[in-house]
Amino acid sequence: MHIKQRRAFLQKSLGALAASTLPSSPLMAEPNSESLNTGKDATKILAQYALNTKYEDLPPKIQHEAIRSFVNYVGVTIGSCRHPAIDICIASLRPVSGSNQASILGRHERFDALNAAFINGVGSHILDFDDTHLVTNVHASGPIASALLAYAEMKPISGKEFMNAFYLGVELTIRLSNALAPDHADIGWHVSGTHPTIGAAAAVGRLMRLTEQQMIWALGLAASQPVGFRDSFGSMNKSFNPGRAASNGLFSALLAQKNFTSSSQMIESRIGWANAMSTKRNYQELLGDLGTRFEIAKNTYKPFACGIVIHPAIDATIQLRNQYKLQPEQIQSILIKANPYVVELTGKKTPQTGLEGKFSAYHSVAIAMIDGRAGEKQYSDAAVLNPKTIALREKIIVEIDPNLPKKSGEAIITLTDGRVLKKSIESAIGGLENPLSDAALDEKFLDLTEGILPRDKSKSILANCWKMSELPSAGSFAKSTTV
Amino acid sequence: MHIKQRRAFLQKSLGALAASTLPSSPLMAEPNSESLNTGKDATKILAQYALNTKYEDLPPKIQHEAIRSFVNYVGVTIGSCRHPAIDICIASLRPVSGSNQASILGRHERFDALNAAFINGVGSHILDFDDTHLVTNVHASGPIASALLAYAEMKPISGKEFMNAFYLGVELTIRLSNALAPDHADIGWHVSGTHPTIGAAAAVGRLMRLTEQQMIWALGLAASQPVGFRDSFGSMNKSFNPGRAASNGLFSALLAQKNFTSSSQMIESRIGWANAMSTKRNYQELLGDLGTRFEIAKNTYKPFACGIVIHPAIDATIQLRNQYKLQPEQIQSILIKANPYVVELTGKKTPQTGLEGKFSAYHSVAIAMIDGRAGEKQYSDAAVLNPKTIALREKIIVEIDPNLPKKSGEAIITLTDGRVLKKSIESAIGGLENPLSDAALDEKFLDLTEGILPRDKSKSILANCWKMSELPSAGSFAKSTTV
Repeated sequence: MHIKQRRAFLQKSLGALAASTLPSSPLMAEPNSESLNTGKDATKILAQYALNTKYEDLPPKIQHEAIRSFVNYVGVTIGSCRHPAIDICIASLRPVSGSNQASILGRHERFDALNAAFINGVGSHILDFDDTHLVTNVHASGPIASALLAYAEMKPISGKEFMNAFYLGVELTIRLSNALAPDHADIGWHVSGTHPTIGAAAAVGRLMRLTEQQMIWALGLAASQPVGFRDSFGSMNKSFNPGRAASNGLFSALLAQKNFTSSSQMIESRIGWANAMSTKRNYQELLGDLGTRFEIAKNTYKPFACGIVIHPAIDATIQLRNQYKLQPEQIQSILIKANPYVVELTGKKTPQTGLEGKFSAYHSVAIAMIDGRAGEKQYSDAAVLNPKTIALREKIIVEIDPNLPKKSGEAIITLTDGRVLKKSIESAIGGLENPLSDAALDEKFLDLTEGILPRDKSKSILANCWKMSELPSAGSFAKSTTV
Repeated sequence: MHIKQRRAFLQKSLGALAASTLPSSPLMAEPNSESLNTGKDATKILAQYALNTKYEDLPPKIQHEAIRSFVNYVGVTIGSCRHPAIDICIASLRPVSGSNQASILGRHERFDALNAAFINGVGSHILDFDDTHLVTNVHASGPIASALLAYAEMKPISGKEFMNAFYLGVELTIRLSNALAPDHADIGWHVSGTHPTIGAAAAVGRLMRLTEQQMIWALGLAASQPVGFRDSFGSMNKSFNPGRAASNGLFSALLAQKNFTSSSQMIESRIGWANAMSTKRNYQELLGDLGTRFEIAKNTYKPFACGIVIHPAIDATIQLRNQYKLQPEQIQSILIKANPYVVELTGKKTPQTGLEGKFSAYHSVAIAMIDGRAGEKQYSDAAVLNPKTIALREKIIVEIDPNLPKKSGEAIITLTDGRVLKKSIESAIGGLENPLSDAALDEKFLDLTEGILPRDKSKSILANCWKMSELPSAGSFAKSTTV
């Protein structure tokens, strides 16, 4: 049945001419049961899928989800552009980089394409506010978009070609991540650095119109460069990993384009990528239903700039605040009922820095009540040390309920006039059941870019993100994101 | 006992001033039994060793072995500089590289330091003629020297500083490789791409005079970027791996120098490098007897440009040829007695290309008799198709003897005048028991660079390699290797 669906997809996507050649000389290898069980020909099948997928054949919902992922990427990357890690990248790489090829989002400096891909990839992840595929928590968009934008300033690339390549890179990255989960992460690897190198090579290779052989080599070279371990969490090295995935993917495609050779089976070989990277492999996840099952559809976007376990409490607090137009002065106490992880991961009662605030349910609920949001600005050092915030957070109690799932929670607010308000959240906003709306993505974007770009310019970039697939030049878009 | 030796080493190497501070504030962590068993503090211990080792404290034999490794590196890298893989690297990376920072050995093109490190690293391994540490077959020198030479054109570095850093990088690379052997390679990794990234970061970081904290970060960032799987063997991807190790190591040190942070325990963490990269870890191999056990002492250099299993047969043939001044016309037959691997790995009877010639014991013995050597020139396409070579190789018989170890073999030559000459080889030249002499390294160097550089220039570069530790500028040396 899957094979039939694939053939239908193929015939549709390849068009009449190509489909007519299928019987004698198939353009795409069929992932038969052997491939799905053992991974046979996986590298070749992925190369063919990358080369043959067309944007106009993607269901509109999938096209839209790709755009949503891109909107979120551009917002968070511009939003992080003044982070010390970006300043360090710029200072470190300036002496070894060509200077006039590609843009750094939100900045004025220009770098060669490889280093620009790296720096934007770092930026995409610093705030930990990028897209998340909830099966493995892989953040796929950053490295893919960063590699593509850098390449789009080297060659004329239309917005539609760009979005097709972006979809491809994200889809392959998520599938690779699912295929090795959870063993790959369990032994220490950071999925947002290991898998997107391959996705980025596929995406850039597609823009280059590589031959099938070249694409196989590009995937092989990219697979040879996995990046990052979980011990990096808490340091800049965490963002280094997707950054390096972006430049490694672009690097691989550039070499393959000139016929730098690799093996023909690097991903699935017994002495290749999947075997060395994980104790278990699920090739059904990687290769099954290519073109009919779209993993990008399950991408999610954080509404709040903090650990995801606090999101139900923030969601409930903001809803009550808005419904009853509450002011902080009215609050007697806020009781939060939460999954045990909320205390374990975010139980910091007296945070002293913005970063510590992200690990404090108390600070998060307080600023949610005061500002009605929990974006980057609510996690500045100043916000955390604000006496008004501190006074309110001391009125907050967190009560653990082991029966509550991580996505659920409840806020019970007692007012000074004696009223008691309750809000129970089954699935916090931003999750799969309650996804962030397009309007909320707009708000997140404008919030992140505020103070970095003039509001008019932010709005214009945002509008262009939404219509990216219609823009004549992805390179011009990249240039437009700078100051 | 080891600790005592280490303390003696420390006090000697750190000098009076530093040693006097040891009791209250030790400059180097002591790898106690916990570290040697579990790897505790491994990253920190390696960082401290890297920062505190001085060239003048290395035993003269070790200094000399480092120089021999460097001589071999420069020869093979210049020798490969016109290989198609290098042409492809240059064509691929020209559009994304700064152009006037660092040299490509044997060429006239210049690249930025990162890309130059990569290209020279690729070149160091293409001929598979680089140094080999026989425990894991790791080829350590190429990535280390390539990263260092590129950096030496950015900043003033003396020859002595260069050789100290080169020793360090090679020593750490071999120790890392030994520590994960053999499981790491068994599951698919290519040791010559995975370990030297860390060695190269340590070496460049030493030249940068990083602080201990920065060096720990540099090692963490480098550990985050292992490169390459064994499925690459037979493709350019095999040489890509040490090339990328060189640029990754330099990249890591550049970022760490500006305080881009990593974790403090990336190598030994349960969710870090060693655990993810191998099912077994031996921290005694990595950390034991630092400063008193020198793994670089066991580096070896191939005398012949082909698979190592044919070396005893070639060695025996050349010895008989030279002893009896034999001409090909005198040969009735040559019987080779050999380990079974000689037929399994190099049993090709009618090779058609130079590369196939490297996998032919018949061609190898024939050209050894005709030319008295088996260098790159003896494995050209022309040499393989030469009628004189073909006529002689048809007189060669290979007889398997399962009792012969791989390093041993015998040649029995019957002459047209009826005489029978025999030579038995217990340990082929180039192995640990019968290392290549300095004079033979000279000959290999001049053979490899012939036709690429004028002979006078080759001799001058070679002389400078031997006295590298006395040269005022490693960067000037790098520049001198170009055309």
